[in-house]
Amino acid sequence: MSEQFTPTEKTKLYRIPKRGVYERETIYQILDEGFICHIGFTAGGKTYVIPTSYARQGDKLLIHGSSASRMMREMAQGIEVCVTVTLLDGLVLARSAFHHSMNYRSVVIFGTAQLITDAGEKYAALKAFTEHIIPNRWQEIRPPNDLELKATIVLSLPIEEASAKIRTGDPVDDEVDYPLNVWAGVVPLKMKQGQPIRDPRLNSDVKLPKYL
Amino acid sequence: MSEQFTPTEKTKLYRIPKRGVYERETIYQILDEGFICHIGFTAGGKTYVIPTSYARQGDKLLIHGSSASRMMREMAQGIEVCVTVTLLDGLVLARSAFHHSMNYRSVVIFGTAQLITDAGEKYAALKAFTEHIIPNRWQEIRPPNDLELKATIVLSLPIEEASAKIRTGDPVDDEVDYPLNVWAGVVPLKMKQGQPIRDPRLNSDVKLPKYL
Repeated sequence: MSEQFTPTEKTKLYRIPKRGVYERETIYQILDEGFICHIGFTAGGKTYVIPTSYARQGDKLLIHGSSASRMMREMAQGIEVCVTVTLLDGLVLARSAFHHSMNYRSVVIFGTAQLITDAGEKYAALKAFTEHIIPNRWQEIRPPNDLELKATIVLSLPIEEASAKIRTGDPVDDEVDYPLNVWAGVVPLKMKQGQPIRDPRLNSDVKLPKYL
Repeated sequence: MSEQFTPTEKTKLYRIPKRGVYERETIYQILDEGFICHIGFTAGGKTYVIPTSYARQGDKLLIHGSSASRMMREMAQGIEVCVTVTLLDGLVLARSAFHHSMNYRSVVIFGTAQLITDAGEKYAALKAFTEHIIPNRWQEIRPPNDLELKATIVLSLPIEEASAKIRTGDPVDDEVDYPLNVWAGVVPLKMKQGQPIRDPRLNSDVKLPKYL
């Protein structure tokens, strides 16, 4: 497996090419940090962009949903999709309006998602979703039963045609604007976990697990 | 202007309809809180999903980009787009793997973006982008000049065919699983601002503005 993706007509960055990254390791780090992807697909001549959770399993991106979901049924037919994961890292405040920007890391994957039908593979995929969100949780929860497995569609998208786009660092102003007395810099943004909220119906002797 | 959007074939939620919201006020609150939207469009028979910043200006969603951007040029031709904004509010940890979920608020808008050509409208739009990110900043930064206005494409998408999807609250487990001694509840997630990082080239006597 190559450590670099080959840029294609769809994934090559033409504008600001220095922001383009094709390294598998960097792309996988971004995918592993995110919780939500946006899936784009065309159905009935219309383009849809739907947010959903996901997990990475080796060189595949897994997506799941209800067997009753229109999106999942459409995608299970083997249509082409574009999946994008974006992590926002900061607001970039320049001296000029024009050079305001954002620091971010995004990944775009193009491909055709395949339906996972094998029960063992499907079970492993559902484990991957839980472990992606909260590592070590799978071992203590009630695993999916046959009915639940049937009620879930799991799709696997090969991570083959992919690229990342990354902006980091300070604002870049026009040289003539640097002497201006306008505050410039970066306001970092980060997704933070708050204090866990117990389900009111939780048995009172169940303690907060270490992984939280 | 109606306070409710009429669900269409594209925006009506068929599955879990209780999560669907068509109130203008709720939809606008979600749009005003987010920083990044994901724009989906089809070009050359391929679907693309691109993250970008945006601003709401009344009943329009504004998107901007470089005149050199392939996406912006495609959209400036008046193609149909689907724009999605997603705010992730928490991880929902159930007793069963199957009922794990996320709390989120998302908005989907379908429509055709129109190119803003009027210089005054374009200027107002650029102000809206800055004020969306950092209110009160516009008054002190160096405003865009004619060259910069020409180098920027601004598109305006009417917010007419839109819906929100919202999940809040505790996990919902199967009744039979409630007695299980598995921690269940919600881990809240929130995008937090960190300590602002000064541009190294900033004049040392420029203080951090109040709006930060």
